[in-house]
Amino acid sequence: MSKVIFYYFDIKGRGESCRLLLAYGGQQFEDRRLTAEQWPAFKPKTRFGQLPILEIDGKQYAQSLAIARYLGRKFGLVGDTPEDALEIDQNVDLFMDFCLKGAQIMRETDAARKESLYAEAVKNVFPGDLERLSSIINKNNGHLALGKLTWGDFVLAGLIDWLKTVLRIPDLEQKYPGFQKVIDNVYSVPKVKAYSESKN
Amino acid sequence: MSKVIFYYFDIKGRGESCRLLLAYGGQQFEDRRLTAEQWPAFKPKTRFGQLPILEIDGKQYAQSLAIARYLGRKFGLVGDTPEDALEIDQNVDLFMDFCLKGAQIMRETDAARKESLYAEAVKNVFPGDLERLSSIINKNNGHLALGKLTWGDFVLAGLIDWLKTVLRIPDLEQKYPGFQKVIDNVYSVPKVKAYSESKN
Repeated sequence: MSKVIFYYFDIKGRGESCRLLLAYGGQQFEDRRLTAEQWPAFKPKTRFGQLPILEIDGKQYAQSLAIARYLGRKFGLVGDTPEDALEIDQNVDLFMDFCLKGAQIMRETDAARKESLYAEAVKNVFPGDLERLSSIINKNNGHLALGKLTWGDFVLAGLIDWLKTVLRIPDLEQKYPGFQKVIDNVYSVPKVKAYSESKN
Repeated sequence: MSKVIFYYFDIKGRGESCRLLLAYGGQQFEDRRLTAEQWPAFKPKTRFGQLPILEIDGKQYAQSLAIARYLGRKFGLVGDTPEDALEIDQNVDLFMDFCLKGAQIMRETDAARKESLYAEAVKNVFPGDLERLSSIINKNNGHLALGKLTWGDFVLAGLIDWLKTVLRIPDLEQKYPGFQKVIDNVYSVPKVKAYSESKN
């Protein structure tokens, strides 16, 4: 990859995992952060009308997970075998399914209904899912898969602030220390730490 | 892969793309289709309490897209480069985002609200997304990506019946002929056709 531009808004959101992976790989990239005011004019220039976008030598790619998986492959973070890659993909999708349950509640526009859905999820959904994810992380030595650093860890680390907001659990990492281990394992990489400290 | 078992219910749903890929690869597999009555007793034996599952030599893998991508890699359906794999992943995720919009409406339990959400999507969401997907398929020569057969085509072909139900467009392939081309490109593979005719 010679000329790389990463387009997203000036938030972590769905873009941070890709930025952290680019930093991990030592890939020079232009970190274009659009304002809400800039977006309407820029949207028609995007390939599918959505962000984030990874642009490589003028070609645009969309979809944050697809981009993160690609960067993982480029930078040696997909394990050694197709079965390793499957194990990462599986655990990323389990994590994302959980995130999407939260996102669905967050998008609810009827305030009373939103609180009712949230209360139901707090009772019957979130605890079981959080325990399952914690168990996966603990079995994997503080990682999302394979017992070592993979691109899946970057997905979790990139989304954690958003997830805490959605779940309304500001001390999520204290309640589920496995999550903190994954985050620490990502940010303890010097290049990642340096990038993060320079930007956020 | 020596001993392979694929567990799912006796529907196409989230499992058919994987079954079709196994057939494409000429992989012998036990096609275990559970009844609703069998599921509660079987669920605790699954790795994450969900189906479908691909079991390879006793090890279980979950998450249908992760499994389909893995089978695509095993059977030479991921293109030639990491950028090819990214292009497929991107387009599969665009297709799945569209499917999930429909699924969210289908899961709504309040009947009046469901109809209201559906009417809004028919007006403001489905047409644009269907046009965008059709355009992608047309640019790719009747395929979801790369202008040739990839595992992404199997994802679309496996979910098409479900999608038509969700969208309530029984003649979807007539209205958007690109979809029919993808389906034809999958089922015209003799091994896939033979499997499909033997099972459905």
